[in-house]
Amino acid sequence: MQKKKIAIMGLGTVGGGAYDILTRNREYIMSTQDIDIEVAAILDRDETPLIRRGIAKSLFCSDIDKLAANGDIELVIETMGGVEPAKTFITKLLRSGKSVVTANKELLAKHWTELTRLAEQNGVGLYFEASCVGGVPIIRALGESLQGDRIQSVYGIINGTTNYILSKMSTENIDYTGALADAQKLGFAEADPKSDVEGYDAAYKLSILASLAFHTVVPYESVYREGITKITGADIVNAHALGYEIKLLAVCKRDGDTVEARVHPALVSRSHPLAAVSGAYNAVYLNGDSVGDLMFFGAGAGASPTGSAIVSDTVKALKGPRCCDFGGDRSDDNIKFAGDFTSGYYMCVTVDDKPGVLGKICTVLSDNGVSIKSALQREGTGERTTLLLLTHRASERSITAAMGEIEKLPVVAAVESMIRVL
Amino acid sequence: MQKKKIAIMGLGTVGGGAYDILTRNREYIMSTQDIDIEVAAILDRDETPLIRRGIAKSLFCSDIDKLAANGDIELVIETMGGVEPAKTFITKLLRSGKSVVTANKELLAKHWTELTRLAEQNGVGLYFEASCVGGVPIIRALGESLQGDRIQSVYGIINGTTNYILSKMSTENIDYTGALADAQKLGFAEADPKSDVEGYDAAYKLSILASLAFHTVVPYESVYREGITKITGADIVNAHALGYEIKLLAVCKRDGDTVEARVHPALVSRSHPLAAVSGAYNAVYLNGDSVGDLMFFGAGAGASPTGSAIVSDTVKALKGPRCCDFGGDRSDDNIKFAGDFTSGYYMCVTVDDKPGVLGKICTVLSDNGVSIKSALQREGTGERTTLLLLTHRASERSITAAMGEIEKLPVVAAVESMIRVL
Repeated sequence: MQKKKIAIMGLGTVGGGAYDILTRNREYIMSTQDIDIEVAAILDRDETPLIRRGIAKSLFCSDIDKLAANGDIELVIETMGGVEPAKTFITKLLRSGKSVVTANKELLAKHWTELTRLAEQNGVGLYFEASCVGGVPIIRALGESLQGDRIQSVYGIINGTTNYILSKMSTENIDYTGALADAQKLGFAEADPKSDVEGYDAAYKLSILASLAFHTVVPYESVYREGITKITGADIVNAHALGYEIKLLAVCKRDGDTVEARVHPALVSRSHPLAAVSGAYNAVYLNGDSVGDLMFFGAGAGASPTGSAIVSDTVKALKGPRCCDFGGDRSDDNIKFAGDFTSGYYMCVTVDDKPGVLGKICTVLSDNGVSIKSALQREGTGERTTLLLLTHRASERSITAAMGEIEKLPVVAAVESMIRVL
Repeated sequence: MQKKKIAIMGLGTVGGGAYDILTRNREYIMSTQDIDIEVAAILDRDETPLIRRGIAKSLFCSDIDKLAANGDIELVIETMGGVEPAKTFITKLLRSGKSVVTANKELLAKHWTELTRLAEQNGVGLYFEASCVGGVPIIRALGESLQGDRIQSVYGIINGTTNYILSKMSTENIDYTGALADAQKLGFAEADPKSDVEGYDAAYKLSILASLAFHTVVPYESVYREGITKITGADIVNAHALGYEIKLLAVCKRDGDTVEARVHPALVSRSHPLAAVSGAYNAVYLNGDSVGDLMFFGAGAGASPTGSAIVSDTVKALKGPRCCDFGGDRSDDNIKFAGDFTSGYYMCVTVDDKPGVLGKICTVLSDNGVSIKSALQREGTGERTTLLLLTHRASERSITAAMGEIEKLPVVAAVESMIRVL
């Protein structure tokens, strides 16, 4: 049996989860994988997280250069998060010939090419299953399955916090603020929830998933991003009335040399498998030209599921061969990133409750090349009434132009909401 | 770029699907995987399938010894199906130092240990992603993800034919015979449907999945098997009334040293993600001690999805390293295969329509340690009425004993159905 020593940088929730699995299942991993993995060093700001877990203080290390120079350590798990100092630390480790297993989506999304090249140049591995969708093995599926497929599209619910909030709004009929407060109370949302609710976290993950799916770097900056903070309880009630749920969707598609990648709320028909993915669960739904539709579903975050992905990467890395084959590390100069998308649209418009209003709105849409798929008029107050419209697919430019004109119609009081439809 | 020559044995539906993908996506695979795969020989009974696809006759080969001796060919795809001559052929190929990619679940389920050992001894690879659940990368997930997890249970809908038939019965309210005829007409069922409808196909696959999930050989013979031929339209209507769908379920669980593996119809609550897996789609729902619940969903069969899995294995095998690490190839003498299971039960009983009947049945169940979860009495004809019962979990022995007694009650005309509940 091979004996291997590793280190963990950052013993927070996720790092602690990985440590717990490596400890609890150490013998099971020995018996099934024929490898004995010992956590021999833990790098953190201070000893507190070690003390809390009853870990011997002798494992504590605060000096990255010492860790990089430690020849006994073959691999380091990075669960610090954020760009710095993680980037500097990982760079030192890769240069010193250690493989790195990371859960750091932000770092990867922002410095993919630099880090993967560095790993390749040093003949070491860089593994990141834990960076996307917790314990769901989507990175492995994109990298080591489906090699014969041209992936055409990926639709994902890949942020647990926003899915928890939207599910809560959907099932309990509460507003965004209440659902966010609840998520914060239960630890599903950070005190500063911006990275999740504004879609940054999902955009980081989508950049990674799209790069692997399309075998070309899809920079984080090319991902269109819109969060869920403007979704109201009324939007969800209206979506239900039309047979839909509202989800924060990460979408990427490839059509020839054009790639589009976007994160935004979307209405998802209840007949689509993604509509049923609720709470802190995540899912990725993709289409390949050979395999057809595939869906991967599981816990999108949390110490134990994310820890599971880290341990899987660790075992894989230590059993070798070292993985330096990053499908996404081929910048293709021919690739164009779409500046305009087509999508179906949901609109909620408050209008004067008198005859001819729907006709006027339809005319504006039609003049802009947008056609109506279905319309629902909610019972009005006498003076005002609410129109819910679903359009067929149209370009975002056309929709935006049409909405600009609709807002100016004298019979229109307000365009309350405009949300894309999957 | 590496240039690799391979052969295909059996150019039927699945072999043809793999050939088509390798041809259609040859350049795409070259550009994304840095490997050029050429199908250099095709072994079949005669040249007909080559002619039908417009493949040069020079590729035709009918002699396995010649193929095994051909030093140019590094890997062979086996898509003949059945035990013989596939087993003899694969044995010769592995011995001659060629890796084999196979879709042959029956052969693997029946000769797992022999074939995997042979591959190991010869230092070549044996790959079988295509043997289970079409293009869904569940073999890769069990083998190369989740290494840190103790898999506790696997629930699968892993036979497309029976799922098509049951879905058809469910949505169109037709009986088994009509749904089977429809499936045969559309090519979803064989002229002789026995292997699918009697659960053999699912049992082969479950033997493979359970062996990988539990890291110990789970012989095909230890899988309890029951088909769908006794499921009636009435069962499905009754299941709907209780909020369930009926699926052919493959189940394996591990509890300490005891493994249970079984294939049988089961009522699945509509709130469970597996209930929504319909038509020819398949899914595997598993639970690991770290990752929690995971579901994999996709096309369970068909030329193109299964071909996708074959091509993925082929690329993986040719890029190396050769895969001889079969998680399941560790017979563990401590392992016991459960002879009795616990399950919830659905029962449909025709009884005399008079007071006290439900009480009598409940007493018999209770005397055998079985408790009722819910009961529904269908409106009777005056003389007879139908009772639908759902029990809490009970051992199969208790349920069987109780049913024996219930059948003998004078007030009971017939026990129409007894189906397990997920």
